[in-house]
Amino acid sequence: MKVLQYLLIKPLLTVCELIPGSHFFVDDLTVISQLFETKAESLEPQGAIAPLQHLFSAHAELRLALVQLSVGASKSENLLRAASKVAEAAKSGAQLVALPECCNSPYGNTFFPEYAEPIPGPSTEAFSKAAADNCVFLVAGSIPEREGDKLYNTCTVFDPKGTLIAKYRKSHLFDIDVPGKITFQESKTLSPGNALSTFETPFGLVGIGICYDIRFPEMAQLYTRRGCRLLLYPGAFNMTTGPAHWELLARGRAVDNQLYVATISPARDETASYIAWGHSTLVSPWGEVVSKAEHAEQVIYADLDPQLVEDIRQQIPVSRQKRTDMYDLKDVSSL
Amino acid sequence: MKVLQYLLIKPLLTVCELIPGSHFFVDDLTVISQLFETKAESLEPQGAIAPLQHLFSAHAELRLALVQLSVGASKSENLLRAASKVAEAAKSGAQLVALPECCNSPYGNTFFPEYAEPIPGPSTEAFSKAAADNCVFLVAGSIPEREGDKLYNTCTVFDPKGTLIAKYRKSHLFDIDVPGKITFQESKTLSPGNALSTFETPFGLVGIGICYDIRFPEMAQLYTRRGCRLLLYPGAFNMTTGPAHWELLARGRAVDNQLYVATISPARDETASYIAWGHSTLVSPWGEVVSKAEHAEQVIYADLDPQLVEDIRQQIPVSRQKRTDMYDLKDVSSL
Repeated sequence: MKVLQYLLIKPLLTVCELIPGSHFFVDDLTVISQLFETKAESLEPQGAIAPLQHLFSAHAELRLALVQLSVGASKSENLLRAASKVAEAAKSGAQLVALPECCNSPYGNTFFPEYAEPIPGPSTEAFSKAAADNCVFLVAGSIPEREGDKLYNTCTVFDPKGTLIAKYRKSHLFDIDVPGKITFQESKTLSPGNALSTFETPFGLVGIGICYDIRFPEMAQLYTRRGCRLLLYPGAFNMTTGPAHWELLARGRAVDNQLYVATISPARDETASYIAWGHSTLVSPWGEVVSKAEHAEQVIYADLDPQLVEDIRQQIPVSRQKRTDMYDLKDVSSL
Repeated sequence: MKVLQYLLIKPLLTVCELIPGSHFFVDDLTVISQLFETKAESLEPQGAIAPLQHLFSAHAELRLALVQLSVGASKSENLLRAASKVAEAAKSGAQLVALPECCNSPYGNTFFPEYAEPIPGPSTEAFSKAAADNCVFLVAGSIPEREGDKLYNTCTVFDPKGTLIAKYRKSHLFDIDVPGKITFQESKTLSPGNALSTFETPFGLVGIGICYDIRFPEMAQLYTRRGCRLLLYPGAFNMTTGPAHWELLARGRAVDNQLYVATISPARDETASYIAWGHSTLVSPWGEVVSKAEHAEQVIYADLDPQLVEDIRQQIPVSRQKRTDMYDLKDVSSL
């Protein structure tokens, strides 16, 4: 039955692939998924959830833009500025545009409650419009989200029609204490999310983490198992951990998982209470820095090649060589 | 009962701690373990095996020497050369000396069967003598081991009495194919090991991997869970993966697991069929390169501070912040 359903849907997908720039949108994938009437787990022997669309080998190149946005005290100005940068990136050919962590608000426990809003809400409406107006996938960094009496640090993703296709709540809160350098406790105001989140593009599957999440290799490993070719980490490392670890962590995730990794920081504001390191970066699946910003506001670009991901995974086949008889990473997160 | 046993043994350990340079040897630990009549699992809620000796907080500084040895075609000359370097390192104050992968044999599938020997055997007898003569812990890189009709790439570890205290067989065999650059298949001649291996020092617990093992973050994560403060990777990266990944992987393991990581390569021999990258490196638990060799034969030194490991783990407490409700790394390896 499954084979029959696949045969029915395959010609449609082939046609889609033949149309330059055509996208599989989530709507299409929902249709496919319903046609299959199956959960993807049943297709994957190791229990990882392989997205259905992998059956159809999305393999288009993708132009990615990382917007190292200047973020100030005015939420409305932040949103306008973000929209103008999305338009600028789209004009330069970007198909996927990513904004930084806390892109509508200054970063800090005093700001989160004041700037927090529900999703959907004014900020996500602005993001949706920016995605649709410019016909791009938009990873809207993060905003402080309010749901009931809880606050979250939340990333929303919109497809080129402006539809919300993914939402991710930071699951590792930034609670650290390096004496005399940096002390911060997000958990004073924020609650953690409990689920990973991915979205599909013509280039392949993309996974999302936020800032401190990048320190947890297990998350990137699960995203890799789920089939990701790109991980996006909107983040705001500081002037202590930034120079020490920002690039190293991105390169580490990339080389271990053989996928592209992007980090997207706000621009540095020396007058802010929390000073961001900047240096938004794209790393190749070989672990090389492909593109890197300085600390000022800047949009950087990179063309991502899904074939490079597949080639490297073929050449050094670590995913196939895992010794699951010695260690075994269980995916116990809800999707 | 356990508390009573602890109270009985504690004064002895306190005395040991007060004697400068005194070591807890494996013999002592076996006695302790027998006294406790318990497996460590029962003490660790998450199922990781916490070595018993952690109850007693080994926390002496340790001078580590990495011997980037020149390895040639003569096994006996290789062993003599290794012994002389161990003596040189001990004279410079090293308490733990590490040799490179394949330190008694050239590296290659044509050499492994020819140079392979049982353990114990002539090579490990030479290592034992070098450890005892110089009163150091010796991590004897690796040698091709023969057991029955199988060959392994095996690391042996000797305490300052010359006793074999740990043995580790490479568990991820080096099978890669980067066209036009490097193609190698260890699995043509070697069999993989199936177990992790650690050993105790006054500085704390040390875990061992060999070369390609470093590409598998799960192994380092398990060693960290078991309580390691130092990971040693004797290895022989090549002229393609060496410049691309050797240092990055070591720094990645260090920053993710907040422990010291050392890689120990043979010296480069441009005339060899497999040319090693060299660049033996020690990385701090903050992810910084502390000491690095060039490509020629060289011994490099570093003083390891267990307090630094503990401080960093306190400051950025990622181990405590793991979201085991989202992912969970199972330790299914035998010890």
